[in-house]
Amino acid sequence: MMIVTKTLEYKSEKYLEFKDITEDVEKIVEETKIKDGQVLIYSPHTTMSIVVNEKEKGICNDFAKVLDKLIPQKEYYEHNDLTKRTENLVCEPGASDCLNGHSHCQHMLMTTSETVPIMEGKMMLGIWQRIFAVELDCSRKRRVVVQIIGQ
Amino acid sequence: MMIVTKTLEYKSEKYLEFKDITEDVEKIVEETKIKDGQVLIYSPHTTMSIVVNEKEKGICNDFAKVLDKLIPQKEYYEHNDLTKRTENLVCEPGASDCLNGHSHCQHMLMTTSETVPIMEGKMMLGIWQRIFAVELDCSRKRRVVVQIIGQ
Amino acid sequence: MMIVTKTLEYKSEKYLEFKDITEDVEKIVEETKIKDGQVLIYSPHTTMSIVVNEKEKGICNDFAKVLDKLIPQKEYYEHNDLTKRTENLVCEPGASDCLNGHSHCQHMLMTTSETVPIMEGKMMLGIWQRIFAVELDCSRKRRVVVQIIGQ
Repeated sequence: MMIVTKTLEYKSEKYLEFKDITEDVEKIVEETKIKDGQVLIYSPHTTMSIVVNEKEKGICNDFAKVLDKLIPQKEYYEHNDLTKRTENLVCEPGASDCLNGHSHCQHMLMTTSETVPIMEGKMMLGIWQRIFAVELDCSRKRRVVVQIIGQ
Repeated sequence: MMIVTKTLEYKSEKYLEFKDITEDVEKIVEETKIKDGQVLIYSPHTTMSIVVNEKEKGICNDFAKVLDKLIPQKEYYEHNDLTKRTENLVCEPGASDCLNGHSHCQHMLMTTSETVPIMEGKMMLGIWQRIFAVELDCSRKRRVVVQIIGQ
Repeated sequence: MMIVTKTLEYKSEKYLEFKDITEDVEKIVEETKIKDGQVLIYSPHTTMSIVVNEKEKGICNDFAKVLDKLIPQKEYYEHNDLTKRTENLVCEPGASDCLNGHSHCQHMLMTTSETVPIMEGKMMLGIWQRIFAVELDCSRKRRVVVQIIGQ
């Protein structure tokens, strides 16, 4: 049994970007030469989610609209209220990268990771499935942890 | 350490069907004779989710109502707009199985898989927990991947 | 390869409590002395979710407001309608701990477990990530299963 852990790094481009990381994950899986097992794709960020879905521009636009309707960016969030907040203030008062109350709430309705089974050395993705890192905040430096367990 | 991967196949009956697959998964777990480990229940579809919750008709009806209120089937989705869309068109123009923008969006707020721990040869499901494959599209041929890792 | 399974027990305090269990999970991971692997944090309850997000009071309040706006506690749920319901009635008619239709629906938009990768004996949590058990029902006795696989 082997465990291999790698990290992808990139800069996200904008709020609600769907970054397709399928080929990056595929490459890591192939390099391990693991035949049977599974791959965990993990976001170490609290405002970026991992999603498995179809790659089609309309879907990404539709989902962006749905998310921003259900949990609007432009609404009052206590997390953004620098007259109240005292914890985890690492940015200057008023700096926009602290004003991400919507991003945290969206993230909690989505997920931090996905796991995909591997058989005969390949991820068992369905015909339409692609793996995305979904940016819920503004453009930022991001990492994705890819961990394969198998033999 | 062993890894066993099996696939369930069935035809879903309708939009928002909760297909109880607990006993099918249980049977696969028992046949492996794995005592300690975990089982991944994975949907290789982009419009079918795996959910662990209570089996009670009212809950299924309630959740169906909630989902369709938050992400209504009858609303404009760019994914359904065949005057705009150019990608992944495998069905005839106008065919209803392409018009599933709501299904994709619902799926991204839900999840592609669930993992359940195994101890003493049994899934550690809580007293009310059952495993469901939830159909977010219309009636279709479906598969569920069940993968056990353990010893 | 080792598999270690432990259970945390506690009494939740109230609806939408965010119980920080990060240190409890950390302690279990350290005691196993497993260097590489992953930890599954699993809720055996149908009305309690596991979430990985930032620990900041405002975020918890914001998310509580969002959840109760999208899936309000005070709304009609068939699950709560004791004139209709016949399944899984373990409480006296009218007892408030049966009236949790909102909790089940919220849970199905959230998740039953999270998995965190382990490297060099430590969980690869991002700088702001903490692990929470989120109570979607009223104050109850709760358990969290923590399972580590690795070597």
